[in-house]
Amino acid sequence: MIRNISGGVTAAMGFSAACCAAGIKYQDRTDMAMLYSTVPCNAAGTFTTNRVKAAPVLWDRDIVSSGCPAQAVVVNAGIANAATGKTGLDLCRKTAEAAGKILDIPASSVLIGSTGVIGPNIPLDKITAGVSVMAAALSDTQEAGTAASRAIMTTDTVNKEFAVSFELPAENGVGTVTVHLGGMCKGSGMIHPNMCTMLAYLTTDCDISRDLLQQALSAVVQDTFNMISVDGDTSTNDTLLVLSNGLAGNRCIDKADETYSLFCEALFTVCRDLAVKMAGDGEGATHLVEMRVYNADTKKNAQILARSVVGSSLVKAMIYGRDANCGRILCALGYAGPDFDPAVIELYLVGEKETVCFYRDGCVQDFDEEKAAAILSEKEVRFACDMKMGSAEAFAWGCDLTYDYVKINGDYRS
Amino acid sequence: MIRNISGGVTAAMGFSAACCAAGIKYQDRTDMAMLYSTVPCNAAGTFTTNRVKAAPVLWDRDIVSSGCPAQAVVVNAGIANAATGKTGLDLCRKTAEAAGKILDIPASSVLIGSTGVIGPNIPLDKITAGVSVMAAALSDTQEAGTAASRAIMTTDTVNKEFAVSFELPAENGVGTVTVHLGGMCKGSGMIHPNMCTMLAYLTTDCDISRDLLQQALSAVVQDTFNMISVDGDTSTNDTLLVLSNGLAGNRCIDKADETYSLFCEALFTVCRDLAVKMAGDGEGATHLVEMRVYNADTKKNAQILARSVVGSSLVKAMIYGRDANCGRILCALGYAGPDFDPAVIELYLVGEKETVCFYRDGCVQDFDEEKAAAILSEKEVRFACDMKMGSAEAFAWGCDLTYDYVKINGDYRS
Repeated sequence: MIRNISGGVTAAMGFSAACCAAGIKYQDRTDMAMLYSTVPCNAAGTFTTNRVKAAPVLWDRDIVSSGCPAQAVVVNAGIANAATGKTGLDLCRKTAEAAGKILDIPASSVLIGSTGVIGPNIPLDKITAGVSVMAAALSDTQEAGTAASRAIMTTDTVNKEFAVSFELPAENGVGTVTVHLGGMCKGSGMIHPNMCTMLAYLTTDCDISRDLLQQALSAVVQDTFNMISVDGDTSTNDTLLVLSNGLAGNRCIDKADETYSLFCEALFTVCRDLAVKMAGDGEGATHLVEMRVYNADTKKNAQILARSVVGSSLVKAMIYGRDANCGRILCALGYAGPDFDPAVIELYLVGEKETVCFYRDGCVQDFDEEKAAAILSEKEVRFACDMKMGSAEAFAWGCDLTYDYVKINGDYRS
Repeated sequence: MIRNISGGVTAAMGFSAACCAAGIKYQDRTDMAMLYSTVPCNAAGTFTTNRVKAAPVLWDRDIVSSGCPAQAVVVNAGIANAATGKTGLDLCRKTAEAAGKILDIPASSVLIGSTGVIGPNIPLDKITAGVSVMAAALSDTQEAGTAASRAIMTTDTVNKEFAVSFELPAENGVGTVTVHLGGMCKGSGMIHPNMCTMLAYLTTDCDISRDLLQQALSAVVQDTFNMISVDGDTSTNDTLLVLSNGLAGNRCIDKADETYSLFCEALFTVCRDLAVKMAGDGEGATHLVEMRVYNADTKKNAQILARSVVGSSLVKAMIYGRDANCGRILCALGYAGPDFDPAVIELYLVGEKETVCFYRDGCVQDFDEEKAAAILSEKEVRFACDMKMGSAEAFAWGCDLTYDYVKINGDYRS
């Protein structure tokens, strides 16, 4: 059984966090975070598929693919260190060297993350000063994890963290031990992850082989972070990392048995929660939007259809306006790509208490407009489409399109 | 040589037009248009690839694919006749029958077009009354064509028409004759054509075989209507039709020779003009945006890259805000799909008088922000990207993302 617990990146044993106000771009707020494990960790990650990859993405991808253990993460907000060429890669190496030296770990075990404006260079002196301050301030308290999640925000309006615990067989063969898995993420604009999301960091004290950790992450990301969209723009910096240090004392998960399944379930729970939080906090958003596609022929098609709806500008604008213009949802299903029969599918607006049928038998239905408007006023707006083809299902999450999205992105750099 | 001339759908000989205020949804304005040729025409068309196709799309596609001659077009604005099932198809048939009867032509030679809200049924009595009024008012004047182009507008802010003339060898073998090609279109929201655009109607007095007419249209649409995007939403109603009645008296174009090439050039000129007008009149738009991708490896990849940039919400918002946040353009190129080397491409902002280099050698350049902001204030904003891979080129057109887009689409049906 997976239990929700409080906290985030410091929920698992052996992990500590810190943050500081390095003044990289933002003033009067924290803008750097550090994560640290008392022992080396297995690391798994998924990264943006954008051809233009930020320097920290290249740095982290090298470490994760090399199979080397990781032990710390250094993240900054404000400047993305993307489109910065060799200078940007040097900055990563020097940051890792500075952190490695002060933490007494190899530079190759320090992962780097950056988020913010594309183009400018990050001032190295501010980064290294921040690393020194944070190394001295590392704490395994819940408050330290929360402060770290706040420090990596950009246009986010709320910090995003989540954690769970579950029981696994003990290493010594006697009974079970409690395993923890928590994480934090940031992301509000340029959110349309492909292989993973903006920045998300998970930590666990579970003992699991590196290969299975990567396998679990690669599978879970498809149903969670890859199913959200704020604006259709896949970032240059998308990074999802998970670190496992094995301190829970469970019998090591080294094959795809039922303990692996339980770990995957926990990983799914944390990733879904963080992904949904990100979708609901999309730039300027006033609603979280969920699209469920069920009875589809394949899961892949269900995912494509669901994601098309939450990505439609017209659907997003109608939700902001609380206008039950359901033809736009049909339209977005229709241009998504997968084949289906418009004469048999059924489309619903699913409220907390009532459900409205928008479309059936090839026709938009004569529904109660007032009831529909009331449901569209709920904070979380849910649509469901029965494809009448098979038994596959998928969920996608997004947000509405508002004046504030335009305002935020018309003048982001100022 | 292709000459621009005034007028639109009535520029070609033998074509007349009319419009009326049928009161289908809008009040106090015209909302129906009719086109008519004094003789039967070859008809070619391209239609939406959306799985959910409006009834008029199904009706027109049948006529065009059957090879039957066409002689009239009846279009309404306000209701799209989409997601209306059998009732919607019956409405098309009855409309064609009413028009055929009063014009004394077969119902199977009457093409139908609708644009507006998806879902509601169009009242048949208003449509047939409108058909009667328009049949009696048909006129081959330029004013009648312009009035027709106004009648099919929805959220469009300007009517869109264009015409050209060119010389072709005469049918009798003595010298040349003047051939005319003109058209009108509407489209402002739900614009991301795939195989063609919202509603566009072209007329020509050129004598050309039906097969070559279709071949020319299918080729030209790829570089014109299919290269514009307002909001990424491919409509259920996209329809592009061209009618040729042969009245110019040219030697019939029945093989792909140089006269066919000249016709294609004229068709391209008209389609590009109408497509660019549609992009520039995107819902809420204050700028036309042009993205040129050159020295790409293939034309297809150049098109995908160019279209990705004009479709990016973040790029669109930055243009509205006149913020030279060029990392967003790089980002949109990067997630478009085609492979390229971010270390060698070059990105430019092309003003009327000056050009600014945004990105080169893998790094965002240190450009003059004031100069860039001034260029971004021009009515037409142009970007160009040198891919350094080959010699293929493509243009895509879009518009900025503004408060008014959200306003228009948050409350479209009211």
